[in-house]
Amino acid sequence: MSTKYVDDFRTAARRAVDWVADYLENVRDYPVTPRMNAGDLVDRLPKSAPDTGEPFKQILKDFEKVIVPSVVHWNHPGFMAYFACTGSTPAIIAEMLAAALNTNGIHWKTSPAVTELEQVTLAWLRQWLGLPDSFFGEIFDTASVSSLHGIAAAREMADPDARENGSRPNLTLYTSEQAHSSIEKDAIALGIGRCNVRKIPVDAEFRMIPGALVKAIQRDLDAGKRPFCVVATVGTTSTTSIDPVPAIADIADQYALWLHVDAAYAGAAVVVPELRRIFDGVERAHSLVVNAHKWLFSPMDLSVFYTRRPDILRRAFSLVPEYLTPVDDTRAVNLMDYGVPLGRRFRALKLWFIMRYFGREGICTLIRSQVAMAKKLAGWVDADPRFERMAPVPLSVVCFRYKGTDEQNQAILDAVNASGKVFLSHTVLNGKLALRVAIGNLGTAREDVEQAWELVRLATMAAEAWRPGSL
Amino acid sequence: MSTKYVDDFRTAARRAVDWVADYLENVRDYPVTPRMNAGDLVDRLPKSAPDTGEPFKQILKDFEKVIVPSVVHWNHPGFMAYFACTGSTPAIIAEMLAAALNTNGIHWKTSPAVTELEQVTLAWLRQWLGLPDSFFGEIFDTASVSSLHGIAAAREMADPDARENGSRPNLTLYTSEQAHSSIEKDAIALGIGRCNVRKIPVDAEFRMIPGALVKAIQRDLDAGKRPFCVVATVGTTSTTSIDPVPAIADIADQYALWLHVDAAYAGAAVVVPELRRIFDGVERAHSLVVNAHKWLFSPMDLSVFYTRRPDILRRAFSLVPEYLTPVDDTRAVNLMDYGVPLGRRFRALKLWFIMRYFGREGICTLIRSQVAMAKKLAGWVDADPRFERMAPVPLSVVCFRYKGTDEQNQAILDAVNASGKVFLSHTVLNGKLALRVAIGNLGTAREDVEQAWELVRLATMAAEAWRPGSL
Repeated sequence: MSTKYVDDFRTAARRAVDWVADYLENVRDYPVTPRMNAGDLVDRLPKSAPDTGEPFKQILKDFEKVIVPSVVHWNHPGFMAYFACTGSTPAIIAEMLAAALNTNGIHWKTSPAVTELEQVTLAWLRQWLGLPDSFFGEIFDTASVSSLHGIAAAREMADPDARENGSRPNLTLYTSEQAHSSIEKDAIALGIGRCNVRKIPVDAEFRMIPGALVKAIQRDLDAGKRPFCVVATVGTTSTTSIDPVPAIADIADQYALWLHVDAAYAGAAVVVPELRRIFDGVERAHSLVVNAHKWLFSPMDLSVFYTRRPDILRRAFSLVPEYLTPVDDTRAVNLMDYGVPLGRRFRALKLWFIMRYFGREGICTLIRSQVAMAKKLAGWVDADPRFERMAPVPLSVVCFRYKGTDEQNQAILDAVNASGKVFLSHTVLNGKLALRVAIGNLGTAREDVEQAWELVRLATMAAEAWRPGSL
Repeated sequence: MSTKYVDDFRTAARRAVDWVADYLENVRDYPVTPRMNAGDLVDRLPKSAPDTGEPFKQILKDFEKVIVPSVVHWNHPGFMAYFACTGSTPAIIAEMLAAALNTNGIHWKTSPAVTELEQVTLAWLRQWLGLPDSFFGEIFDTASVSSLHGIAAAREMADPDARENGSRPNLTLYTSEQAHSSIEKDAIALGIGRCNVRKIPVDAEFRMIPGALVKAIQRDLDAGKRPFCVVATVGTTSTTSIDPVPAIADIADQYALWLHVDAAYAGAAVVVPELRRIFDGVERAHSLVVNAHKWLFSPMDLSVFYTRRPDILRRAFSLVPEYLTPVDDTRAVNLMDYGVPLGRRFRALKLWFIMRYFGREGICTLIRSQVAMAKKLAGWVDADPRFERMAPVPLSVVCFRYKGTDEQNQAILDAVNASGKVFLSHTVLNGKLALRVAIGNLGTAREDVEQAWELVRLATMAAEAWRPGSL
């Protein structure tokens, strides 16, 4: 490569490193969410790309001045919305290295490092998760896509003819009312159809009711339907409730269903010994998703998919064109045979950096402290008679509400978020709007959680003052 | 964040920047492909992740000593396999920044910058590609996933009931014999079924024959099938042949089929004015895929998907759970409504860096020179009576063979690749093994192509000497 090209990079990349370091050091100075209207960034940017190239200095300046002010800072200690997560420093470095190598693990031969490091890191993670060696791992971008592959394999097990002749309209899939919307979306994409997704009721703690699952399966069998898959969730999106996997696995066995477990968020918690029990029965799953970009300190995107039936997944997806003939070696795994995407970026590199940099104990300490902070917050909520907690807190998410109207709760949420100090999200539980505090960023400290709670209490006083008739 | 955490990053990231700069400067010193057996890297790495964290220094050292020697260097000027591509410097910097921000564009509110910069950069690219403003763009990881969305939207147009009740077994899809395998794989995933994919014959220049397409559609209609989609390819994977899109668009109109155009590789070439004609008729496509990580100097992964019917795509995929209620603003696009993946990493940032750093003229100059190098190589092949060219060279890929046996051609390929200087791949055309030289890396210079050709000629002399009976 030309010297100028490389020298320009060296200067600009060093400047970018300094920017990142300063950003991480001072991230609390940024408002978590921008104050802007839709279209503001579009309006600030030129209508066309430049004809001639621009210097890095200008691009980096615009990045700081124009782009960053439109960013929601998911890497901010005050980010407690959705599932809080972390773009950790080892992964930031690894992403840069991966982009520089730009190596692509389509099949083994196209880059042994990509395939083998993916196998190694997912074997390491499998140990951390206490899963049997029979679990085969691969990386996708998002949990939606991982679950799509689990459900596709389920279809292949139930109806091997689908690969050739298409989905049959009688296949039915089971998941709970609290399952992630991606399960339903995957069923749409796969040609299963939304009407063939049964949403099984949950108990008072938002966990799938096994008896209701059996009833639904029986009803479908009686109607000539063909139950093929059940999706259990370990750590649902609203409340982090944990479906009773052992009972669901029994039912899956009884009816010969594929059991897919969505542990996209909660899977990482199993690294902590005292939380291991949330994975009871998961070793019986046919497939499993755990997102490293949720609670394993990886930036987007790194969704880990495991299956103990790679043979079935491979049967569903293997399709080898002449120009991609793989090497003939049993140790050479060709990951393109196990899913839709063909290109495979070197995502495993960041997982390897993360696992080595933090070590099992480092990850364990972080997750343990985040769960402790959530329990502390739950205690504050419980101790304040103006609030009610809306769900148990098994992990690092707390759902609660002010004992008033939904409008008041919305007003509290909006006021808290307008502070720019924290960003909370919401959900609806038992028909009521609930505030939702998710703790998961590496930088989040006790003071951040205290601040969030203080802001909620302040906003509540304001909302109370505005109660109709209160003036 | 703690000072040590940030300081450690600053030191290690600077070291990583220097490694990348040195790597780019001296990349020709690396063998393009590693000499190793399957499992070698697995065997060199520990069986378990460390319990306690390790210093960056050690991780970076192992990266250099253990990981890099197992990498196929797709960013090497001698990489001429598959489709050559580039992890360019502006994108390397942008990937680091994106990982540090770790912002996630699920819907507009979760990060306006992600959504709006994706809209802006894809509007810029749309202009470069000469497409109408009505083309709505979004980014997926790979072309396989982009095309999956095109075909899913096609199904939604033909059979809006599929979303609710699943795919019907009579839907048929048309593409050429030379189409990428991902089209068939997408049909499997979507529940269309492999048997419902018709592979239309091609002419002597590997382009779909419109008359054969009409015949296949008619045959299916007569048999009670329901043709719903045709996939044309602009730049096929084997030979970069260009299907006659205007004629195919006429047929799509006539039979009310969705027209999806796979221009994953070749789309970028349209930035060059004299190559614009390869996009004739593409403005009539319902959807289109162009991979920036192929020929737009982006590292993996960045697949650009356009559709002029976002309404249909949205109808297929929109599904909004309570915890993701978007803001009520017509300018706030919620990209989660237009596909399977929910999380959306800040891929647009690297596209913005690339388009600004190179500018339209910079990109144009690079692509133009790569096409010229391919034509030069084609001329050398044509001038040597021992070789035959196997396909036209409209872009930057040259397919040719030594006029001997497949075994001899394979031996030539193996010998050339064993040099470590270049990496070529192969394909099969008209039943014969062909060598395939793809030019597309930013660093590839005339000397690299000359060297590749010289290596082929040397290896051919060896292969000729080894002809049975020649000793």
